[in-house]
Amino acid sequence: MVINMAANASEAELQHVIDRVKECGFQPHVTRGTERAIVAAVGTGGSRSALEALKAAPGVEDVVPIAHPFKLVSRQTRGERSCVNVGDVCIGGAEAVVIAGPCSVESREQILSTARAVRAAGATMLRGGAYKPRTSPYEFQGLGVEALQLLREAREETGLPVVTEVMSTEDIPLISEYADMLQVGARNMQNFALLRQLAKAGKPILLKRGPSASVKEWLLAAEYLLAGGNSSVVLCERGIKTFETEMRNTLDLAAVALVRELSHLPVIADPSHGTGRRELIAPASRAALAIGADGLIIEVHPCPERALSDGAQSLTLQEFARLMQNLTAPIRPVAAMAVAV
Amino acid sequence: MVINMAANASEAELQHVIDRVKECGFQPHVTRGTERAIVAAVGTGGSRSALEALKAAPGVEDVVPIAHPFKLVSRQTRGERSCVNVGDVCIGGAEAVVIAGPCSVESREQILSTARAVRAAGATMLRGGAYKPRTSPYEFQGLGVEALQLLREAREETGLPVVTEVMSTEDIPLISEYADMLQVGARNMQNFALLRQLAKAGKPILLKRGPSASVKEWLLAAEYLLAGGNSSVVLCERGIKTFETEMRNTLDLAAVALVRELSHLPVIADPSHGTGRRELIAPASRAALAIGADGLIIEVHPCPERALSDGAQSLTLQEFARLMQNLTAPIRPVAAMAVAV
Amino acid sequence: MVINMAANASEAELQHVIDRVKECGFQPHVTRGTERAIVAAVGTGGSRSALEALKAAPGVEDVVPIAHPFKLVSRQTRGERSCVNVGDVCIGGAEAVVIAGPCSVESREQILSTARAVRAAGATMLRGGAYKPRTSPYEFQGLGVEALQLLREAREETGLPVVTEVMSTEDIPLISEYADMLQVGARNMQNFALLRQLAKAGKPILLKRGPSASVKEWLLAAEYLLAGGNSSVVLCERGIKTFETEMRNTLDLAAVALVRELSHLPVIADPSHGTGRRELIAPASRAALAIGADGLIIEVHPCPERALSDGAQSLTLQEFARLMQNLTAPIRPVAAMAVAV
Amino acid sequence: MVINMAANASEAELQHVIDRVKECGFQPHVTRGTERAIVAAVGTGGSRSALEALKAAPGVEDVVPIAHPFKLVSRQTRGERSCVNVGDVCIGGAEAVVIAGPCSVESREQILSTARAVRAAGATMLRGGAYKPRTSPYEFQGLGVEALQLLREAREETGLPVVTEVMSTEDIPLISEYADMLQVGARNMQNFALLRQLAKAGKPILLKRGPSASVKEWLLAAEYLLAGGNSSVVLCERGIKTFETEMRNTLDLAAVALVRELSHLPVIADPSHGTGRRELIAPASRAALAIGADGLIIEVHPCPERALSDGAQSLTLQEFARLMQNLTAPIRPVAAMAVAV
Repeated sequence: MVINMAANASEAELQHVIDRVKECGFQPHVTRGTERAIVAAVGTGGSRSALEALKAAPGVEDVVPIAHPFKLVSRQTRGERSCVNVGDVCIGGAEAVVIAGPCSVESREQILSTARAVRAAGATMLRGGAYKPRTSPYEFQGLGVEALQLLREAREETGLPVVTEVMSTEDIPLISEYADMLQVGARNMQNFALLRQLAKAGKPILLKRGPSASVKEWLLAAEYLLAGGNSSVVLCERGIKTFETEMRNTLDLAAVALVRELSHLPVIADPSHGTGRRELIAPASRAALAIGADGLIIEVHPCPERALSDGAQSLTLQEFARLMQNLTAPIRPVAAMAVAV
Repeated sequence: MVINMAANASEAELQHVIDRVKECGFQPHVTRGTERAIVAAVGTGGSRSALEALKAAPGVEDVVPIAHPFKLVSRQTRGERSCVNVGDVCIGGAEAVVIAGPCSVESREQILSTARAVRAAGATMLRGGAYKPRTSPYEFQGLGVEALQLLREAREETGLPVVTEVMSTEDIPLISEYADMLQVGARNMQNFALLRQLAKAGKPILLKRGPSASVKEWLLAAEYLLAGGNSSVVLCERGIKTFETEMRNTLDLAAVALVRELSHLPVIADPSHGTGRRELIAPASRAALAIGADGLIIEVHPCPERALSDGAQSLTLQEFARLMQNLTAPIRPVAAMAVAV
Repeated sequence: MVINMAANASEAELQHVIDRVKECGFQPHVTRGTERAIVAAVGTGGSRSALEALKAAPGVEDVVPIAHPFKLVSRQTRGERSCVNVGDVCIGGAEAVVIAGPCSVESREQILSTARAVRAAGATMLRGGAYKPRTSPYEFQGLGVEALQLLREAREETGLPVVTEVMSTEDIPLISEYADMLQVGARNMQNFALLRQLAKAGKPILLKRGPSASVKEWLLAAEYLLAGGNSSVVLCERGIKTFETEMRNTLDLAAVALVRELSHLPVIADPSHGTGRRELIAPASRAALAIGADGLIIEVHPCPERALSDGAQSLTLQEFARLMQNLTAPIRPVAAMAVAV
Repeated sequence: MVINMAANASEAELQHVIDRVKECGFQPHVTRGTERAIVAAVGTGGSRSALEALKAAPGVEDVVPIAHPFKLVSRQTRGERSCVNVGDVCIGGAEAVVIAGPCSVESREQILSTARAVRAAGATMLRGGAYKPRTSPYEFQGLGVEALQLLREAREETGLPVVTEVMSTEDIPLISEYADMLQVGARNMQNFALLRQLAKAGKPILLKRGPSASVKEWLLAAEYLLAGGNSSVVLCERGIKTFETEMRNTLDLAAVALVRELSHLPVIADPSHGTGRRELIAPASRAALAIGADGLIIEVHPCPERALSDGAQSLTLQEFARLMQNLTAPIRPVAAMAVAV
């Protein structure tokens, strides 16, 4: 942290800050400029938030963080990239992983036919919602335990490990019986009570980025899981809220590359929520892999126009198969100069 | 809902949409334009989300909602404004209510001295965090039940009803024993599992707007509470996330006026989180009341620079007393023409 | 500026940064932390952007600005608040100023009847667009010089000084003949070619905040005008673009208070563009004055539903008169404790 | 347009809307719902903005657009994709185009060495700023005509066509003499006076998306150029402003795919401004091509840490060469099921 004193701060105010920096467990280093002084707080043992509160001390203009606040998720902490195993599937390895399935599990026929189709098309994991976070209380809220049983059946038949969302700490034990991976939905990314319990659940976690979460806040949410004892965490970029309304969200693909710089954790992309438009999902999927995503999670439904949730952004089984065929097709070549100089 | 057919949609595609609208429980009314047809779905008995899924039907370009999706919170549903009682305090009545107190309860001395001071200055409710949602797992997470006991003691001494945040369904029974009003924090606004349990808690709820929640999403979160049986809901605008970084959030004061147009629920403002800067809290508080807020919630601490959370935006006891004195001072007069024409 | 070295930066890389800081005209002060070193660049004579480019130097993790980059607009530079005179009107004085009129000048009858009505209701300046920036080329683009002549006629009859928008450097001489104040529209806030010419125009300037401009960028746009020789600048907050779509923009009223902290320039608010909804304009106007705005600019039209631009957010003459009557009505009182303790 | 009447609208109000729709040049089609009526305005000959003003008519709740407001840029208007020729270079053809060069032209040595290096690495066009839009008036503003002469020299030596930014209508004739393509910078995207003049300039235009421009607004800015007679327009996605601060902007790559759905115009991406971080430029460039971009524009500088602008996001000559080598490398393969079922 660097504490930036106001231009008109007194010597007594500066001394007070110096004393407080020491009390907070850091060593103060003062630089006197022509207009103002700054105090650098050196050390790692003290409390960052105690330093931040110095913004309220007289004569202080601002407190500016220098280092990132996360530790266990940081790439500096761990030399190599992490791989998270879900059943036989390794997320974060040499190959990208495709997770596919419906937004909600709606019926036996729906989930089984989807599971078979996405497996045939090349997906290696199955998604499907049993407990659904819905903006309106009047919308379909998921089949609950019945959906969990159907997901298990789909896994047994197809061999695809299953990921499904957990919305409440109370549901963790039950869902853990059925699912191979537990998803934290975007709107629960900073549900810290949930994160703390999931840290002890003994299952790999898929942590979606909140719709207004900065990359730093997202990594700190993951830090809750690692600090609580669970290092099997996969991050998922699913779009952020911006002023643009033609798409459901703004898919922040560069954040995928940034997360790979800052953290050792695997990161996948969700082009279905990220764009909300079916015609954009295939190109966005290719772009996600090109920018370094360790995988994709894609909504697929046998009949999107009858889906109980997210129909507008769900691919048909055929559309998904086509997406998979073109996913790793060569990137468009670059033009060369017409004539040598 | 209006279903907007594509310019090149076929008659069969149009007929399919007409059939589906009927299946969804609405009556279809078709308007054929020069370039395209639109289908209006008339009625209130059917499923909105089923209609929305028609975006995925062939020949459909878009599905556009016409009416707002909320019911119980709507001002159209209930002619007059609601008043929510918390102890002897009425939020939503003729007078504005000021809730004040520290971000976190830190010690007996801290909360008692603050409670006494804010009461003396004119506050009629006390705030104080026992369970704190913190961005980083390494920050102070609240004193828990010890804080609840201290809050009760402060209430007994000062008579101020207490509001405190609930982060987890599991904590509801315990916190309900101690607090007069339960707060849903901004990051939990769409924690639907929590909302569903709070609807049954039998306590008034303070529902903060999520940092990226639209007014519509916010009102639908309130709809979860009312639909679940709890109509004692107070909304709280506390700033949204935007590109502006000089302030912690962008306090959306116009949303306070908008919510009063759309809903009968009381709405208050939180200028502390809404601006994150102490020097802006007094003017923002005046503006909130001027735009129609039913009250304010303000962070106050005996020594902000030593606060364990939110020190930078906490007022000292003296600053809060000064704020209260000027809160309803006359608005600056408007210039008249210097010379008559 | 503080240059934050990477944790693994070498001594040679650190020395290189030290040398470059000197070359850029600053004195380097090095603080060695437990994990990394930081270099503070002290002094005011050097080039900030040269320092910023050091982000690209090997071993540098980040370059963090400490002081604000603006000078002439800063409140630190000038002890007292500025007042800008437009005809007999003083913006920034003890009384708030209300500017009113139609979005576009559409006809003689329209502008004259509006001018008379807003004057009678208490406005002291007239607004009206002659050259209109429109999102679509197929929308009404303004009457141009004819509108300027009508504005002059309205001023002569009512005595109200006139403000109108300048979209192009070429139009400055002509518009300067007719208008008392020149407006820079939100979309031209960073049209630096325009700002540079307006700095020499010898007329007071109304500088609207860009829809995605930070407060810092806005003040730097004003700095272009002051640095170019024109210190008669009034800032205007008119809403920023956010994810919220129920209102046309998010009116950032706290920014008004912030600008008053950072700068000596007067600042007014535009609740018409800031909300885009007629029913919100009166409460937002009151809030703007309560938070410290030096005035308001409000769209008024004799028949909003026939307006050629911005009809949805224009007040009728009657609605404007009512707004003026309630503008400075007392703020709602604050509840006191029911029973003494 | 669909006009949504309020639930309590009277018959007279409805009739008034019907009459106004006819006056505006459309045919009204009324659908009476259980709660409210809607009026669809059918036809293409009337004025959209006149319809929009009906929001201000009594009994009207909202006016909702159905069709997109752009015409000439629409893909529906023109069956096939457009190709824009700049010298021998075709943007929008089978191969992607790479434009590279420094942010600002700083010296003869700088621009010539950069031009040679980017040509050798495979770029087919040269970029370089002569007139620079800078946030602060105290920053380097470009070498002006001297820069134009140096760009011409670089083109003569390397054969690379040149694109450079135009900030003011007055500069168009001069810059047109030197440059092969004229760039509209992001902050000038809605400088309509500039767009109108550029429509007549007889040169291909590179139209950058504004930092807060929706895709619709961006396409309407292009519509100004086409409607004015210039159909040689290339769009450029360069990142939008969001709450995320770790990157300079949020590169909206999905918007590239969306623009290709909505418009026939070529679209390229600018990963330099789009991310603002050198380490992200190579992966973002690959992703841009994978999602369908017709090309890239990339900032390159012989010594970024001494660049007079945008050093932090400029690649060295070596880094750019490496980027070009990996640009179209195969996309990471997708994992297959470990064991057949």
